[in-house]
Amino acid sequence: MTSEMEIICVGNELLIGKTLNTNSQWLSKQATTLGITVKRITVVADDVNEIANAVSEAISRKPQFMITTGGLGPTFDDKTLAGIAKALNRKLEINNEALKMVKEKYEAYAIEKGTETVELTPPRMKMATLPEKAEPIRNPVGTAPGVQIDLEETMLVVLPGVPLEMEAIFDAAIVPLFKQVSGGSGFYEKSIYVDGVMESSLAPLIDEVMQDNPGVYIKSHPKGRENMPHIEIHVSITARGAVQSEEKLQKVVVQLSGLIGRIGGEVAVDEFG
Amino acid sequence: MTSEMEIICVGNELLIGKTLNTNSQWLSKQATTLGITVKRITVVADDVNEIANAVSEAISRKPQFMITTGGLGPTFDDKTLAGIAKALNRKLEINNEALKMVKEKYEAYAIEKGTETVELTPPRMKMATLPEKAEPIRNPVGTAPGVQIDLEETMLVVLPGVPLEMEAIFDAAIVPLFKQVSGGSGFYEKSIYVDGVMESSLAPLIDEVMQDNPGVYIKSHPKGRENMPHIEIHVSITARGAVQSEEKLQKVVVQLSGLIGRIGGEVAVDEFG
Repeated sequence: MTSEMEIICVGNELLIGKTLNTNSQWLSKQATTLGITVKRITVVADDVNEIANAVSEAISRKPQFMITTGGLGPTFDDKTLAGIAKALNRKLEINNEALKMVKEKYEAYAIEKGTETVELTPPRMKMATLPEKAEPIRNPVGTAPGVQIDLEETMLVVLPGVPLEMEAIFDAAIVPLFKQVSGGSGFYEKSIYVDGVMESSLAPLIDEVMQDNPGVYIKSHPKGRENMPHIEIHVSITARGAVQSEEKLQKVVVQLSGLIGRIGGEVAVDEFG
Repeated sequence: MTSEMEIICVGNELLIGKTLNTNSQWLSKQATTLGITVKRITVVADDVNEIANAVSEAISRKPQFMITTGGLGPTFDDKTLAGIAKALNRKLEINNEALKMVKEKYEAYAIEKGTETVELTPPRMKMATLPEKAEPIRNPVGTAPGVQIDLEETMLVVLPGVPLEMEAIFDAAIVPLFKQVSGGSGFYEKSIYVDGVMESSLAPLIDEVMQDNPGVYIKSHPKGRENMPHIEIHVSITARGAVQSEEKLQKVVVQLSGLIGRIGGEVAVDEFG
């Protein structure tokens, strides 16, 4: 059993198609590589009720980790912490540790610029206003701290939506934790590329090889068309032990390639090979 | 009140970070442009229960439209229709109209190639196996038909995950419907780019302008860092009437630019202007 995680992305820009959701891909890839299984990604608007509902629903599914991105900044539409407070039925309050982090940032900017005041206006105080019993996480590259909230069954981590900031906090604060939790589990994968066979003809071969190789997941990704098929077959496993995992994958690739060759398919290890 | 829509994307490849979810961005953008409001995007694995849960939950929120993508192909892990059948408590059955569509595709491929048999193997029959009371939608570029299921409050549209196929079915079958439903509503947007002002200093100005201009949504997108700010301000409205909408946006841009200029910000209409 691997540890499970959900991702909640907050932002109207994702729901109007203005912004491509690279954050959820980045987080999914990091978590997967570290042996954590991402079960669901949810995207909601900058709306307190929408955020609260998504967070409540995710909590009820009891993932070990929940990561939110977006909605932590100083403007009125940064509503993630208000949504989380509502979901948890906790008050929002100035968090002194977070306030210290925000203050330090503005003082540093003021020194750097020599112009901007460090007055802690309401929009700036907002970034230090967290749900009760939350811990701020230092943001190495931006102003708004990340937030950690330990619930009964879920650790909730709240990250900014600006990719550089999200990535920096994740790398510094979350990666060590994930490594510890997954206890050396990793994700291993290989792809082969098949020409000259329709996906519907590969289906029974994939079934057969998966039955022979428990723990290994095989998925075909059609990249051409059914009548001019070019198919990636992606083989993966989440397990401890790099060498054994790679051996298992190699065995699957050999078995699959043999079966595909027998029905006239051409197999390559490079996409355009 | 605009019509609301939810998107459910099915595919392990999205949850392991292998594939960037361009489908949800494409669908969101099309729907938004046609005056439909996307309320939520959910990504789940190739798992009958996960799909069934996500579909049931979305139905309970009563969006007028729900679009799923992915999981319609011939392989064992294409489970979207099984998940939907489970959510709706309907049987899966061979749909004769869908079977005719699938047969025609394989006959055409066989003629084209002169080699492949058109035998309707179980993986191929699978693509014509739909929940009861569902309508297949012709797939102009691939084999698996799309599916339409009319529920009490929601029209559920099931599309393939291969982008070309998803887009072709959407353009042919869904766009005319969305146009009709939204009754000439459209989405109008403008961006301006601000240098030299921190996002936290813009926050009160945005509040002020939004209060003066009901219906117009203003969101700041930081693209630099708080201490070297470069901020996109995106202004949008969903409404009938292109000319009036553009005028409203223009008024907002003028008002905002004035206020930003007064606190020393530089405003440009191009990102690097």
